[in-house]
Amino acid sequence: MSESTQAIAYAKNNRERYLAELKEFLAIPSVSTLSQHKPDMQRAAEWLSKQLSGIGFKHVEIMPTAGHPVVYGEWLSKPGKPTVLVYGHYDVQPVDPLNEWTTPPFEPTVRGDNLYARGASDMKGQAHAFLKALEALAKNEGLPLNIKVMIEGEEEVGSPSLGAFIEKNKEKLKCDFVLNADSSIMSPEQPSLVYGLRGLAYFELWVHGPKQDLHSGIFGGSVHNPAQVMCELIAGMHDADGRVTLPGFYDKVRDLPEEERRELAHPSDEEWRKMCGAPQLHGEKRFTTAERVGARPTLEVCGIQSGFTCEGAKTVLPAKAMAKISMRLVPYQDDKEVEGQLRAYLEKHAPPTVRWELKKFVTGPAVLVKRDTPGMRAAIKALEATFGKKPVFKLEGGSVPVVSMVTATLGVDSILMGFGLPDDNLHSPNEKLHLPNFYRGVEAYIRFFDAVAG
Amino acid sequence: MSESTQAIAYAKNNRERYLAELKEFLAIPSVSTLSQHKPDMQRAAEWLSKQLSGIGFKHVEIMPTAGHPVVYGEWLSKPGKPTVLVYGHYDVQPVDPLNEWTTPPFEPTVRGDNLYARGASDMKGQAHAFLKALEALAKNEGLPLNIKVMIEGEEEVGSPSLGAFIEKNKEKLKCDFVLNADSSIMSPEQPSLVYGLRGLAYFELWVHGPKQDLHSGIFGGSVHNPAQVMCELIAGMHDADGRVTLPGFYDKVRDLPEEERRELAHPSDEEWRKMCGAPQLHGEKRFTTAERVGARPTLEVCGIQSGFTCEGAKTVLPAKAMAKISMRLVPYQDDKEVEGQLRAYLEKHAPPTVRWELKKFVTGPAVLVKRDTPGMRAAIKALEATFGKKPVFKLEGGSVPVVSMVTATLGVDSILMGFGLPDDNLHSPNEKLHLPNFYRGVEAYIRFFDAVAG
Repeated sequence: MSESTQAIAYAKNNRERYLAELKEFLAIPSVSTLSQHKPDMQRAAEWLSKQLSGIGFKHVEIMPTAGHPVVYGEWLSKPGKPTVLVYGHYDVQPVDPLNEWTTPPFEPTVRGDNLYARGASDMKGQAHAFLKALEALAKNEGLPLNIKVMIEGEEEVGSPSLGAFIEKNKEKLKCDFVLNADSSIMSPEQPSLVYGLRGLAYFELWVHGPKQDLHSGIFGGSVHNPAQVMCELIAGMHDADGRVTLPGFYDKVRDLPEEERRELAHPSDEEWRKMCGAPQLHGEKRFTTAERVGARPTLEVCGIQSGFTCEGAKTVLPAKAMAKISMRLVPYQDDKEVEGQLRAYLEKHAPPTVRWELKKFVTGPAVLVKRDTPGMRAAIKALEATFGKKPVFKLEGGSVPVVSMVTATLGVDSILMGFGLPDDNLHSPNEKLHLPNFYRGVEAYIRFFDAVAG
Repeated sequence: MSESTQAIAYAKNNRERYLAELKEFLAIPSVSTLSQHKPDMQRAAEWLSKQLSGIGFKHVEIMPTAGHPVVYGEWLSKPGKPTVLVYGHYDVQPVDPLNEWTTPPFEPTVRGDNLYARGASDMKGQAHAFLKALEALAKNEGLPLNIKVMIEGEEEVGSPSLGAFIEKNKEKLKCDFVLNADSSIMSPEQPSLVYGLRGLAYFELWVHGPKQDLHSGIFGGSVHNPAQVMCELIAGMHDADGRVTLPGFYDKVRDLPEEERRELAHPSDEEWRKMCGAPQLHGEKRFTTAERVGARPTLEVCGIQSGFTCEGAKTVLPAKAMAKISMRLVPYQDDKEVEGQLRAYLEKHAPPTVRWELKKFVTGPAVLVKRDTPGMRAAIKALEATFGKKPVFKLEGGSVPVVSMVTATLGVDSILMGFGLPDDNLHSPNEKLHLPNFYRGVEAYIRFFDAVAG
């Protein structure tokens, strides 16, 4: 890969500027789910479009969608060479609980090797890394292939407008494959490639009992408490082996082939436990942690609320209870089928003493990427050259909706190549980006584009 | 009871003024638990002390406590006659959820036969009824016995200062028995007398898992979700028969003697169900509703909170979960013992994947009043004369801390005689007072004082 020597040297020499620019980008509070941040979403999109123009992209536009806009750029100067569609998102998660942040989430701060800010790892840092790789190539050897860039503003709310956007712009977005930078590696010492992502089905369950909150002394004992019913329903959704009890839940779950199982990489259990800070790990019996978070579906309570929850004591028998329940799906589960399974469970187990209702929110299928493709080979080559170590294969627990959309609409695979770390505190207070990874990321992307061009 | 003919006629002629005065009293937002209402507590106490002076009480004072003051009055002009200590409270519950009130809680409004306001039934209406009975006697035949009045401002927060107050003023409060007006009857057509009250033990349980909220995709499946653990713990606190499973929980619970069981009065199940508005009633198997709410202990979830509970979807695995758990105790359960039972349950059932902590809030023992005493006989006589129907006996589910305090410190029984109704929406939006009951209450108290005097 001698072709990119200059670009790599350029990237090394420009680290300070890269960091300063990234801080600028991170200071924009582009929280997609909160309407008061709509102007910030626009500012973030404009910031990106200026970056693309600065790099030399021939065509840059901020394209409207039903929700937040998509920033699109293209530079197609190498006929005969492959075309890669590079994906990222400029929106970030909300910051609450704010009081748990050491430094304010939108005042990017370097401490040690890390840059702390909301979005630092998920994924403004990754997006900036591929932009700086493209810049390094453009300003030195020149882009060796055709590039389209699509950076959306709604990934953190489940990409509700992106499916229609891709469908509408099918021709424009045509490509050989997608480089999806919304990904991570196992550790700074061990590069890895994600070849599967879990899907998501998110529900809100309501249990209604009395017409209003009751005096727990007067009525307590004669009325089924909706909070207790909710607890009973949720408790029954797992058995003693940690398996989800919804009828048929595992019917379509594939058994991992022995070879794939053997190759499956993951941090050690003790490292993993330290990352999450729980007293002990826990999960489905007879599976490793790598399988539990990558190859097995889950059902989680993301939130639960009922009755009086302020300080002190109020002796109330609540009228209703609410729980947010999310399922992480694996191939080849279907979100409509799991919804049916959840309804069947509730129909069977909810007592006649209450009324229940179920609302469906975001959904998206799981994804499995072929491991033997030109894109994958280029990624392996780039990672090995940058880290001095062969990447291992990982199944990732999170969901990235766009991956299945591009397969369905554009008929192409995605290479999931990003440089986040499992302890980057994604969606949590004190999100961070490991800066050595950021710089290595820029270099790895340079090598990747080179390797794809061949 | 011909002695009180004039007083009864006076009470009938003054209904309009009684209602106008009560509205004045109810307009004072004396919410004891909220510090911003401290001046209103003082105003309510002053309003009462003016009432007592107006009636002709020889000695009236607003006596400080560690918390809100007690309004005290005495009129001891009948040596040789019994002395009754009349108890009431002038504080009220908070009003939230405010948007569920048809008319504002502190703008007392008559609709049909009912007066709507916070505190109308619990218990400014009851307090005003005994004050007006005393007034009617004082202004006509004269008080036939010795009266001490003690109206506190902290019942709705569990009477935290009253125990010390009674202890300190033991001599001053000496009496033959207590008339406690913080009570209710079965229906406007069926008078009843409460001879037992459940006690209370209130706890807050915390379950801690990961060090902070986690990404439910990345970690989901490998970490025990504290919200799920909380649900499992709570679900396990009842068995399929609706019995509480804490070890030893029923050991000290008395079996109701067959005669008491037969006499135990309660609205019909269908009336009760309509009052609470639940699809069906529910409770401990093999017990009637009357027993379930009066003679059996309960364990209720008063509140539960974990993770993300705002609108929409946030895919988070919560770091912790909290539940407010209250138990209604019956004779001869002990709050320290049930705390021990709850801890034993948690020690046995909480998994090593989480850490838990338990905080104790308000507690108070259950109460059982002797049914064959001069006070009880006077109450029966007064109710029968007023309603034209013999009262039935009830065990009440709620707790009134003062009842056990006066037994412990003054060595006297309480007569629980009030005129609230089970559907008065105590502690709930749209609290109301049934006005015909209020007027009958005044008359019944007149007859009661007469009957006690003999």
